[in-house]
Amino acid sequence: MESVRVPLGERSYDILIGSGTLKDIGRHLKGTAFWRDSSARTAIVSNPTVYKLYGDTVYESMAEAGFEPVKVIVPDGEEYKTLLWAEHILGKLLSAKLDRSSFIVALGGGVIGDMAGFAASTYMRGIRFVQAPTTLLAQVDSSVGGKTGVNHPLGKNMIGAFWQPSLVWIDTATLGTLPKKEFIAGMAEVIKYGIIRDSEFFEFIGKNKKDILNLNSKALTRIIKRSCEIKAEVVSKDERESGLRAILNCGHTVGHAIETVTGYTRYLHGEAVAIGMHMEAHFADMPQKEVARIKRLIESYGLSTGLPKDIDEGALMAAMEIDKKALRGELRFVLPETIGSVKVLPVKKDRVLKALKRGG
Amino acid sequence: MESVRVPLGERSYDILIGSGTLKDIGRHLKGTAFWRDSSARTAIVSNPTVYKLYGDTVYESMAEAGFEPVKVIVPDGEEYKTLLWAEHILGKLLSAKLDRSSFIVALGGGVIGDMAGFAASTYMRGIRFVQAPTTLLAQVDSSVGGKTGVNHPLGKNMIGAFWQPSLVWIDTATLGTLPKKEFIAGMAEVIKYGIIRDSEFFEFIGKNKKDILNLNSKALTRIIKRSCEIKAEVVSKDERESGLRAILNCGHTVGHAIETVTGYTRYLHGEAVAIGMHMEAHFADMPQKEVARIKRLIESYGLSTGLPKDIDEGALMAAMEIDKKALRGELRFVLPETIGSVKVLPVKKDRVLKALKRGG
Repeated sequence: MESVRVPLGERSYDILIGSGTLKDIGRHLKGTAFWRDSSARTAIVSNPTVYKLYGDTVYESMAEAGFEPVKVIVPDGEEYKTLLWAEHILGKLLSAKLDRSSFIVALGGGVIGDMAGFAASTYMRGIRFVQAPTTLLAQVDSSVGGKTGVNHPLGKNMIGAFWQPSLVWIDTATLGTLPKKEFIAGMAEVIKYGIIRDSEFFEFIGKNKKDILNLNSKALTRIIKRSCEIKAEVVSKDERESGLRAILNCGHTVGHAIETVTGYTRYLHGEAVAIGMHMEAHFADMPQKEVARIKRLIESYGLSTGLPKDIDEGALMAAMEIDKKALRGELRFVLPETIGSVKVLPVKKDRVLKALKRGG
Repeated sequence: MESVRVPLGERSYDILIGSGTLKDIGRHLKGTAFWRDSSARTAIVSNPTVYKLYGDTVYESMAEAGFEPVKVIVPDGEEYKTLLWAEHILGKLLSAKLDRSSFIVALGGGVIGDMAGFAASTYMRGIRFVQAPTTLLAQVDSSVGGKTGVNHPLGKNMIGAFWQPSLVWIDTATLGTLPKKEFIAGMAEVIKYGIIRDSEFFEFIGKNKKDILNLNSKALTRIIKRSCEIKAEVVSKDERESGLRAILNCGHTVGHAIETVTGYTRYLHGEAVAIGMHMEAHFADMPQKEVARIKRLIESYGLSTGLPKDIDEGALMAAMEIDKKALRGELRFVLPETIGSVKVLPVKKDRVLKALKRGG
């Protein structure tokens, strides 16, 4: 297995990446000193789709290692990432009598990881949890860095906590059952890492498209590992997003706004971010040639880069004003200076509106 | 004003104690370097009873200092300390467009402080908050130490976070409008500090009963300051209750169980803790003379020390088994060795049951 360390002092943890490794998770957890003091009572939080595919494997692996897991299932979809469903999880943990030394395994995509992590952060004021991400998006982004939370009708991820997992266990074989559309959407976040931090990686993603789309195990491990390395580096320097960490939101200010105004149903997160990265590149003082390279790579993976005509720019502007990065009404974006380097910069509203109206 | 520092590294803060000081809170907040970078948008979270008495004073003080506070009112009572009402607060903060640099002022007793603090801990993954406690219980206990949260039907304070306030602003004059019954209940926590850490303080509380009950400003400041000092010392050594901090729960294992089985309506928290401290002293290996001194001091303040016959001991035992201090089914209590010193110790269930049946 490949490993990436997230160095955060007493909150440090490992990301372990392998293929076909879900069946070994119980043995690993039991074997690590850190988990030997754990209560046997644990919970596996998942959704029906993922649990059907991998739930028994994880359950049996845990049970064989001596844990007593309780299964907690929440419906599949971003629309269920609510405080109400988080409370449902918490109720199940209480009924199963998990105690302060217990932990949770989050088995699924970003929604499961965010909600199970938030439940872990608030259960008895905080217990440990393991991320076992099964989507590309979760493997390269949401499972690492400790952002947990739920949505509020007035905005995405507005309720939450910074709560680091104690382990991230990535089995790349799970990508074999991921709908192609979701895999592609996840590639938007992988491309993002190239844009914000590593121009060579940006080129690698372009040159190895075939292997990546064919789910070649070596290629997958390479892009996931490099993405996690960049994320780990950024997060370790700025855990609570008071500065540097904001660069991970490249494409996300516009991306989140698109998701908000379309009610989280029309676009996958990565699809919205892909459009966002391209739109935001237009606000940047960046050579047109570079903007075109970004557009080309995104589109080469079958992702869209343009804003559909039926999306109202005024509504997008309003959604952006409630963004967590918005400070006293000013709009701020993560803008590339060149591929491999970005800065957080304020942009005048009329410039943003103009670019949005042009559709990118 | 008297001040007590809670030393917690980058999460350190001051407890400021004075009489008639609520009118100065805005000026103080504005004048502190820490708050100068703050957004003007703030929220005052309170309940109708407290807001009617002190809301305008705080609101005007804040507004005069240049803040733009929004008023968030939640109903008065422990039964409203729920995730649903926390979500209500969060919705109001979002509507008022508080951002990451905003802060919340919690104006009220323990319920308000716990809920507003929890809302602060989860709003945009955490914003700052000020505790402005208006009950004795909140002033000597719940406003200090960063325990925030809400209740779940299956147990008290089961959902929450450790989230330290940035300032605790105690105006002892608010105790003048506190119902006598609540003041007396708060004295149970004050007595607790004597039992767990300071036998001289225990004696002081006995000798100065008259001044304390007459709300003599000097006596109040003395007992509040000493209580806060002890709490600050304990919390600074063990912020997340992995060891020492548990001693603050002296009387609370039985106390919480009493509250749970009586549905939080029959006893005030301090009243239940008073009974709990006396009951738990019976599980301790402590001279009967010392147990009697504890009983005498508690009763001298008009608090009850016995368990009523109609409370079922089996139900109490079941409630204790879900207590956060319970570890793998074992019952653990904070037991005095002598007045001024306690230890966390396991006690066999039949011994607990026997003492409960005897009623103390």
